[in-house]
Amino acid sequence: MSLSSASKTETASQKDANMQWGGRFAVGPSEIMQAINASISFDKALWKQDIAGSLAHAAMLAHVGIISKDDETAIRNGLTAIGQDIEAGRFEFSEALEDIHMNIEARLSDRIGEAGKRLHTARSRNDQVATDFRLWVRDAIDGVDQQVASLMRALARRAEEHAADPMPGFTHLQTAQPVTFGHHLMAYVEMLARDRGRLADTRKRLNECPLGSAALAGTSFPIDRSMTAGLLGFDRPTANSLDSVSDRDFALEYLSALSIMAMHLSRLAEEIVIWCSSPFSFIRLSDAFTTGSSIMPQKRNPDAAELVRAKTGRITGSLVSLLTVMKGLPLAYAKDMQEDKEPVFAATDAATLSLAACDGMIRDMTANTKQMRALAGSGYSTATDIADWLVRVLKVPFRTAHHVTGRLVAKAEEKGVDLADLSLAEMQAEEPGITDDIYSVLTVEASIASRTSEGGTASTNVLREARKWQEALAADAPSTSANSAAK
Amino acid sequence: MSLSSASKTETASQKDANMQWGGRFAVGPSEIMQAINASISFDKALWKQDIAGSLAHAAMLAHVGIISKDDETAIRNGLTAIGQDIEAGRFEFSEALEDIHMNIEARLSDRIGEAGKRLHTARSRNDQVATDFRLWVRDAIDGVDQQVASLMRALARRAEEHAADPMPGFTHLQTAQPVTFGHHLMAYVEMLARDRGRLADTRKRLNECPLGSAALAGTSFPIDRSMTAGLLGFDRPTANSLDSVSDRDFALEYLSALSIMAMHLSRLAEEIVIWCSSPFSFIRLSDAFTTGSSIMPQKRNPDAAELVRAKTGRITGSLVSLLTVMKGLPLAYAKDMQEDKEPVFAATDAATLSLAACDGMIRDMTANTKQMRALAGSGYSTATDIADWLVRVLKVPFRTAHHVTGRLVAKAEEKGVDLADLSLAEMQAEEPGITDDIYSVLTVEASIASRTSEGGTASTNVLREARKWQEALAADAPSTSANSAAK
Amino acid sequence: MSLSSASKTETASQKDANMQWGGRFAVGPSEIMQAINASISFDKALWKQDIAGSLAHAAMLAHVGIISKDDETAIRNGLTAIGQDIEAGRFEFSEALEDIHMNIEARLSDRIGEAGKRLHTARSRNDQVATDFRLWVRDAIDGVDQQVASLMRALARRAEEHAADPMPGFTHLQTAQPVTFGHHLMAYVEMLARDRGRLADTRKRLNECPLGSAALAGTSFPIDRSMTAGLLGFDRPTANSLDSVSDRDFALEYLSALSIMAMHLSRLAEEIVIWCSSPFSFIRLSDAFTTGSSIMPQKRNPDAAELVRAKTGRITGSLVSLLTVMKGLPLAYAKDMQEDKEPVFAATDAATLSLAACDGMIRDMTANTKQMRALAGSGYSTATDIADWLVRVLKVPFRTAHHVTGRLVAKAEEKGVDLADLSLAEMQAEEPGITDDIYSVLTVEASIASRTSEGGTASTNVLREARKWQEALAADAPSTSANSAAK
Amino acid sequence: MSLSSASKTETASQKDANMQWGGRFAVGPSEIMQAINASISFDKALWKQDIAGSLAHAAMLAHVGIISKDDETAIRNGLTAIGQDIEAGRFEFSEALEDIHMNIEARLSDRIGEAGKRLHTARSRNDQVATDFRLWVRDAIDGVDQQVASLMRALARRAEEHAADPMPGFTHLQTAQPVTFGHHLMAYVEMLARDRGRLADTRKRLNECPLGSAALAGTSFPIDRSMTAGLLGFDRPTANSLDSVSDRDFALEYLSALSIMAMHLSRLAEEIVIWCSSPFSFIRLSDAFTTGSSIMPQKRNPDAAELVRAKTGRITGSLVSLLTVMKGLPLAYAKDMQEDKEPVFAATDAATLSLAACDGMIRDMTANTKQMRALAGSGYSTATDIADWLVRVLKVPFRTAHHVTGRLVAKAEEKGVDLADLSLAEMQAEEPGITDDIYSVLTVEASIASRTSEGGTASTNVLREARKWQEALAADAPSTSANSAAK
Repeated sequence: MSLSSASKTETASQKDANMQWGGRFAVGPSEIMQAINASISFDKALWKQDIAGSLAHAAMLAHVGIISKDDETAIRNGLTAIGQDIEAGRFEFSEALEDIHMNIEARLSDRIGEAGKRLHTARSRNDQVATDFRLWVRDAIDGVDQQVASLMRALARRAEEHAADPMPGFTHLQTAQPVTFGHHLMAYVEMLARDRGRLADTRKRLNECPLGSAALAGTSFPIDRSMTAGLLGFDRPTANSLDSVSDRDFALEYLSALSIMAMHLSRLAEEIVIWCSSPFSFIRLSDAFTTGSSIMPQKRNPDAAELVRAKTGRITGSLVSLLTVMKGLPLAYAKDMQEDKEPVFAATDAATLSLAACDGMIRDMTANTKQMRALAGSGYSTATDIADWLVRVLKVPFRTAHHVTGRLVAKAEEKGVDLADLSLAEMQAEEPGITDDIYSVLTVEASIASRTSEGGTASTNVLREARKWQEALAADAPSTSANSAAK
Repeated sequence: MSLSSASKTETASQKDANMQWGGRFAVGPSEIMQAINASISFDKALWKQDIAGSLAHAAMLAHVGIISKDDETAIRNGLTAIGQDIEAGRFEFSEALEDIHMNIEARLSDRIGEAGKRLHTARSRNDQVATDFRLWVRDAIDGVDQQVASLMRALARRAEEHAADPMPGFTHLQTAQPVTFGHHLMAYVEMLARDRGRLADTRKRLNECPLGSAALAGTSFPIDRSMTAGLLGFDRPTANSLDSVSDRDFALEYLSALSIMAMHLSRLAEEIVIWCSSPFSFIRLSDAFTTGSSIMPQKRNPDAAELVRAKTGRITGSLVSLLTVMKGLPLAYAKDMQEDKEPVFAATDAATLSLAACDGMIRDMTANTKQMRALAGSGYSTATDIADWLVRVLKVPFRTAHHVTGRLVAKAEEKGVDLADLSLAEMQAEEPGITDDIYSVLTVEASIASRTSEGGTASTNVLREARKWQEALAADAPSTSANSAAK
Repeated sequence: MSLSSASKTETASQKDANMQWGGRFAVGPSEIMQAINASISFDKALWKQDIAGSLAHAAMLAHVGIISKDDETAIRNGLTAIGQDIEAGRFEFSEALEDIHMNIEARLSDRIGEAGKRLHTARSRNDQVATDFRLWVRDAIDGVDQQVASLMRALARRAEEHAADPMPGFTHLQTAQPVTFGHHLMAYVEMLARDRGRLADTRKRLNECPLGSAALAGTSFPIDRSMTAGLLGFDRPTANSLDSVSDRDFALEYLSALSIMAMHLSRLAEEIVIWCSSPFSFIRLSDAFTTGSSIMPQKRNPDAAELVRAKTGRITGSLVSLLTVMKGLPLAYAKDMQEDKEPVFAATDAATLSLAACDGMIRDMTANTKQMRALAGSGYSTATDIADWLVRVLKVPFRTAHHVTGRLVAKAEEKGVDLADLSLAEMQAEEPGITDDIYSVLTVEASIASRTSEGGTASTNVLREARKWQEALAADAPSTSANSAAK
Repeated sequence: MSLSSASKTETASQKDANMQWGGRFAVGPSEIMQAINASISFDKALWKQDIAGSLAHAAMLAHVGIISKDDETAIRNGLTAIGQDIEAGRFEFSEALEDIHMNIEARLSDRIGEAGKRLHTARSRNDQVATDFRLWVRDAIDGVDQQVASLMRALARRAEEHAADPMPGFTHLQTAQPVTFGHHLMAYVEMLARDRGRLADTRKRLNECPLGSAALAGTSFPIDRSMTAGLLGFDRPTANSLDSVSDRDFALEYLSALSIMAMHLSRLAEEIVIWCSSPFSFIRLSDAFTTGSSIMPQKRNPDAAELVRAKTGRITGSLVSLLTVMKGLPLAYAKDMQEDKEPVFAATDAATLSLAACDGMIRDMTANTKQMRALAGSGYSTATDIADWLVRVLKVPFRTAHHVTGRLVAKAEEKGVDLADLSLAEMQAEEPGITDDIYSVLTVEASIASRTSEGGTASTNVLREARKWQEALAADAPSTSANSAAK
């Protein structure tokens, strides 16, 4: 219910109260309470998880003899039918029933009578919602993880393609040393691999089942929590009933992982925006991933990249929201914790869209290798190679070599030429030991080829990494997670 | 469009692309772009403001002769009809048309033909959305401001009622000195008055009109920006076209004001939760503002208070979201700025619900004055009054008086009695100058009555303040803001 | 005291306790308590404000007869001497005395005896620290405000200099329409003017004096709070003693204002980084504001700009810190509030450094007007001017003009020429009404000159604004604020 | 250098510039640059890690023949001596040398000449600082982890002690069902165990060595990165040189883990504050962990708990700071990343103090078991046990049993008695099947004893968990981590 839609049934005293609040509200106290209290408008997203949890709970109750097999069958059939109704859009959600749990349980009792009233034995809404939300977050992790893997595959494939294409390597957005475009793209593969690691760790830590913790103290019924845990794909039951209903770590850790990932995507998005800018012109996005202008055909606004960059705000904000909600809450369950879902839903939407957009842009983009190559060699970008040559060949201490190189570059700059255009005599004037061999290290290609240290930008390295990752990710093909509750 | 709802019309190559992303997405590149790019799902909330802005723009264009009077009439009639359609739920929003601005303009041209195509002269979507969003935030400020005033009225009325009722004043949640319940409630009136001040300042700073800044550089048409500004209730046009389309300060300042206000409400909510807790039992909320339990009748869970306390998370998170979005954006307009609306909408909803709930709870609560009075006198809460008596009557330096009092309290504690139960001789053993008069300052009532310093807890003070505020707020009765665009 | 510096005097039982915590700590319980509790390491920054507050308090106590004139003289002389000692670095701060207030009061009693013990009459540390911190924040606001004004002067001066120099105006970092560099710089003047407005509003709302609120309930002494308020440059005393010791709004509002300002500076910094990048090369910073590399002379890393961009993180983080601290605190004073100072100090340092660095960079930078001019005319940046011409001269509806222009640009792009290189016949093929006159709007200079709408980029506008602001800011010359406590 | 300490050597033109900025600054441009750029004031905390990194690098350079064995010996001796100087406080840090890396390298060359100039071969400051900071964070994780383990030991020991002591279990801070105090404390053991899990995962992911990535592209020298990685206790070298110098994930993940942990501690702290409040009086803290008042002996302000609660603000703020810093940074290294250290240092300090304070308070507190027992039985807290009895014994469906119980409680409330005081006839009036047996479930002790489900509050469960954890943590005794660089 929206506060602005006035209830027609309010009493006179409620109306009187309304007069006090100014014109904005046309509802009485009970409407306010319902508006702030009901969660059905957003927690209906948990319907699949709620039904899965109830099915497992009923199976366990029957197994240990708390309910009969017949009751379990009735419950199973009833819940299955309700699931079909919801999927088909035939289920009417009621705000008076507050949340998804009460909506489904009430409907079940309507359908199957007494058996439905036995379902809530040995559990409470506190452990029920904790279970449902864990299942939802687990499914979300699996979905995000698949998208990250897909983006990594896209990056690795483009990296293989551009393993030998030079681009200017930047620090401080100033040209520093030549690198390959493939190497640059592979840096994001490493970042995203860490993101997957965080998601996997979060999932592992999340994967304990709170069901059976009841309101906060456990129950006197002889339940089998390992059975429900197993049926729902959890590794084990949680160990402390008070903690079980008070804990939202899994949501916070998930939001933390998404926040770091969103930061990575914001860096990629920033680079795409800069690379698409006319003075850079490193890449071009097709019409599919830009918005154009009917009068300025050069305008391919990288809207998708800008939105990815922006969505890191939503995700970080969601993390801050939930950290703030949980700060200083006494045990056990407090209603504050109902504010856990919307930030998680919003962050998941933002992450899902951002990953899909990045995936699409990486597959779509066309690299302007000519422009990148041209800039890679500008700005004395191979000066470091001279210093290294002096150390390696002439055994000059590095700090000294550094100074000699500085003088050579100053000389080149003064003459307005590149380093390779200095004569051997000019070179030797600064350091008599220099020989013709030094010219061999001054090209962009030589510079890149020499960086064969582990993790360095040499094309051989890049090619090996790009292929290694593609193989690893191929094994990791999209598949349906066996224990997803939402199937 | 949701990404999970597969488009049926995708091409084979799109399907192929999908294969790469894992099973989650069944949509092709253009669907992703549309899903991340379109804002109509949330910016349709701006429809009133968008129509108001267009009406003002058209009136100005006609006034200066850029369009004809007939065109203006057609536009006015067309937009009015569209507004009626939207209000009646007859308008079909199209995601393909991206946003509310294009949805309305396209419909207008459908309805009135050529005149509709003249409306967008001398403006662009960049200044249009900046104008619409300012109008929306201005309306939101006015609504929130009325609610804050209502809550202040409720607090001041309850404070008047309880101006003489003692309660234990806490620091560190430890009993410190007696205060009156009315005085405690009036503290929140002061906090909320500052909140209103911040909202008013934000509104004043916001109240400049960006319309006519066009894409970013202004326009060559002889527009009259003061006229549009005036028609929309703005104080003046903005001064720099680049800034006009790049600025979201008004949203950030509004979110800052809401964040501080939400923090205030979270403190009130925390106190309500603690006061309702059985060991405290300072107040009782009725069924209207609690959720009960059918088996534990003593359980009146203060859900509304808990939710108010929690919603500060959403609001602070929204502020962080938008600060993060805006960080490091080059001028002028960037698509990142489309992520400004949802945080503002979410924070406004949370603030509106929180204020309504607090308002309701303050009017609803019943104070347990007996319990508060009993605790107000416990714990040697009037010890400070002894020290002050020693300073005032015996001219003992305060630090010395402080130490003497400490010894008296230790003696009372040792004997297990209250300070008033010490004999005069016992008192004089510590400080020979003490006379019978000292007993007059040892009661809760005397302690409170003596605190007549400006802002102190004496009932006379509290009564005066409570009445002063009620008068001031009565003048400030709910009214419709004259220049609201949303009427 | 740092926890890692072991106390030598701990008892055996403390050592025993330590054994439980692992090897990291070699201190006992009381050392932990002292380490977490003491604030002198950071709140000594308040020494000037603390002395100013005590001087005013003593003057008032003497004025109303609570202490004698002689005592006041002794207190004044004592505090003055202590202030000189602190300024000269001769004062030894003691952690055992916890905070700046106790350090100074204890020293005062050491120096002047009994009179010193009378100073703390009718106040407590709760109102004392609230007063001191307000004074500190007020001084900080004044300092930051002066820096912002200086940066605005610098920007306006550079804007006047470049009022007619074209640069490409960007949206989405894509070339959109020509603007002038001066116009772009003036956008920041507008942003900073709003920042000053927020600081001024914060200062005004802050400027009430909590002194005399005592612990939380006021006092029974006949104090004159208006007198102390006046002596300290406050507009009036605060109105509610409970609120007075519980309120940190002034710090939060200050941090909000700084956060928005830091976001502005991060945008300027981002632009400087991009403008300094070799593909853009719009500006050049001197050695004073870059760090070089001894081997890559082209490398003028814009470190200062990068650090300004980064420091927005510290400032936003400080705001989040304090909002989190204050969330859900019951009234009145709680020790949590001691965590208010470090975020405010850190944010002030970051803001101060950022403003100084921006001020320096703006004065220092050399604009590469030739490069900017060249890019301003590229990418059909004057296409909008054709559309406007069609509307203005031929009365074509704007949406139709927009489409005609699109076709003209497509034709130019196909031929690989600029719009001005299309023949009149080629133009007329799309729209027969086009005349020779259209060529007059196709130059960068004509486009800029035509944008004379209020706030538009026409040089006349820019020049007027730049001069107006310089005049306004000249009046606002640096001066010492009359009521600063820190003088 | 502080900006407020004027340099005496500034030039006239610098002074001139200063005039523009108002009175606050008495320094010229180069001083500003130095003030914002230099990091030595805080990064000197990395000195141990910097020396450890250089020792490993030198050993590797000698091993592969890039420098001679003699040079390595000289470097080792020189760095060892410098380390001793720093430890002894004899090292003078220079701001002109900017950071800890340059300070140490410059000193080394001063001491040992040419060999010192060979140390920086095949590395740059970009990979050096990334390595140093990882080592620092790794050490910090190890220290925090030990503290968490200690706090868990303390909680488990107190839980064992109070495994059978009843307390009221709360939801919504309203009495819900009886639990044991031990069970409540064990909930925090579970939370902290997850915190350790997050720290361990962070450490594992962090434990790759960036050294040898050089500026951004790797190096042409034949270095052995696996050797340096091994010498520094890393599991392996990082895989991509661009990523290596651009990555600060390890710091963000560490701050995320601390933020969640700080939230846990804030909940414990909130409970301690409430439990110490006079209406609750569940526990008492000794003088060692409270601050008293010389005049109110009952006042044992739980300052340490309040400060722990507050420090969650600093830690969350630090996370937001660094997330904001990293948002949208193009690769590779940018100076923005220098702002990574202070948030991490501040958060570590806050976490370390908070853990030590909680550890001390848990060991120190005295439980008021009598008060807790009394409240545990109030408020019909065993009503759920009746409902469960009806289900278990009479096979009444749970929802029906729930309603029957509600009527019984209403009857008891009406009569003003406890449930156990209702006669059997009164019970049977609601449900004829009820027998005498029902009285056996109505006591606090019976209620607790019956909650034997896994994770439930039955004392047998609590005792087993408390002992299990103590054993597990005993094995995990404080020890010095073998590969700490800081030894």
